[in-house]
Amino acid sequence: MKRNISLTLMYDGSSLHGWQMQENAATVQGHLTDALERILGHKVTLYGCSRTDCGVHANTFCCNFRTERETPCEKIKVGANALVPESIAVLSAEEKPEGFNARFDCKGKEYVYKVWNSRVRNPFYTNRALHHPISLDEALLDKECKAFIGYHDFSAFCASGTEVQDKRRTVYDFSVRREGDLVLFTVKGDGFLYNMVRIMVGTLLDINSGKIPAGTLADIIESKDRLKAGITARACGLYLNKVFYDEI
Amino acid sequence: MKRNISLTLMYDGSSLHGWQMQENAATVQGHLTDALERILGHKVTLYGCSRTDCGVHANTFCCNFRTERETPCEKIKVGANALVPESIAVLSAEEKPEGFNARFDCKGKEYVYKVWNSRVRNPFYTNRALHHPISLDEALLDKECKAFIGYHDFSAFCASGTEVQDKRRTVYDFSVRREGDLVLFTVKGDGFLYNMVRIMVGTLLDINSGKIPAGTLADIIESKDRLKAGITARACGLYLNKVFYDEI
Repeated sequence: MKRNISLTLMYDGSSLHGWQMQENAATVQGHLTDALERILGHKVTLYGCSRTDCGVHANTFCCNFRTERETPCEKIKVGANALVPESIAVLSAEEKPEGFNARFDCKGKEYVYKVWNSRVRNPFYTNRALHHPISLDEALLDKECKAFIGYHDFSAFCASGTEVQDKRRTVYDFSVRREGDLVLFTVKGDGFLYNMVRIMVGTLLDINSGKIPAGTLADIIESKDRLKAGITARACGLYLNKVFYDEI
Repeated sequence: MKRNISLTLMYDGSSLHGWQMQENAATVQGHLTDALERILGHKVTLYGCSRTDCGVHANTFCCNFRTERETPCEKIKVGANALVPESIAVLSAEEKPEGFNARFDCKGKEYVYKVWNSRVRNPFYTNRALHHPISLDEALLDKECKAFIGYHDFSAFCASGTEVQDKRRTVYDFSVRREGDLVLFTVKGDGFLYNMVRIMVGTLLDINSGKIPAGTLADIIESKDRLKAGITARACGLYLNKVFYDEI
């Protein structure tokens, strides 16, 4: 009888090439697979709740794998933390029902995008926030971003060349708020297309600068035209913040 | 007529060998001197408000130098930020009276020592806080640390081999408080001996663990015996937080 074990992770993506295993590149899946195989003594296949790009961070990330070993979850957690680099932490390990899959059972996610909004950079946010020296009007952006909320075809906010056919997703919530010189973009939805959050944030930055007129986000969504949306904001500001399995 | 210019810095010390210039090691003074000499075209001598050790951080650090050039302060700031690594930021540059010296005119300093107090590490605090997995009783430590406040001979809290003769200093304030899994030790004083804050924090950690009995800090201070105090807490948790020039 195979046990199905889920792990909750946190990682600083600065020095990582994202989640997905790659030849000759340090990835979360790669480091964690190596660690688990050393602990369990057999090949391990890890299923992640999503892919994260090179440089993207996670406050919470969920994945699962199967094993016939009887190693207690606590021992797997402690062992994995000892074997993976300090940029990754295994926060918890727990037994799941046989059919659980971290990717397919995921009901929704919340991302936070951090912008360091001051003329001078903050060394403590290097690679951990986008440095945007032009003053952001968080009240304007918080109003504008509400246009994303709802069930829409987000083709205009998807990197070109994606294989996904159905680009309709539901955004449950979107907000922009300031904490001192840090501006936080928080978005919650049932699923996200490739680069979707980064293009949404990039478009809001273009609205702030006036390059894209305020009040036109609904039209841009409706156009389904990637060229009408703004730039793709840099990966370093993006954090997978929460992953929902039961309810949102 | 030479201008006297002060710079306020912030730096993430993780990848730096402290403030003071050294051969073959990346230091704040080294990087900044190189940058200023390129901007101004002459040799520059930088006076720092204190030395910080390898791995120690600064939310605020003050230094000054002299130049005959008429380069505006804003241009020096922008130029220096462009030339130093991203681990260092020049927050401001300003003209000072002829006699101002960042070290000797400093009336006091505030340090913060950060402890990540959770069984599992936080990747975002790697090299930026001490990971201490044993639960800290911040209420107890906040009570204990008050023994440091006042004018004392802090010989017991000074690394051995220091040349400084007079080891009497005034601690104005000391507090320990918790913000979630982060425990912050904040100390303000007119001056600090070599490793003094790190030994004070290390001693409090030893009081928490019971290795040093609660209620004995005043005796340890009075003993002037370094061997009676606790360990020197790691550099990575220490931040020079504020530097006072006018009043404290």
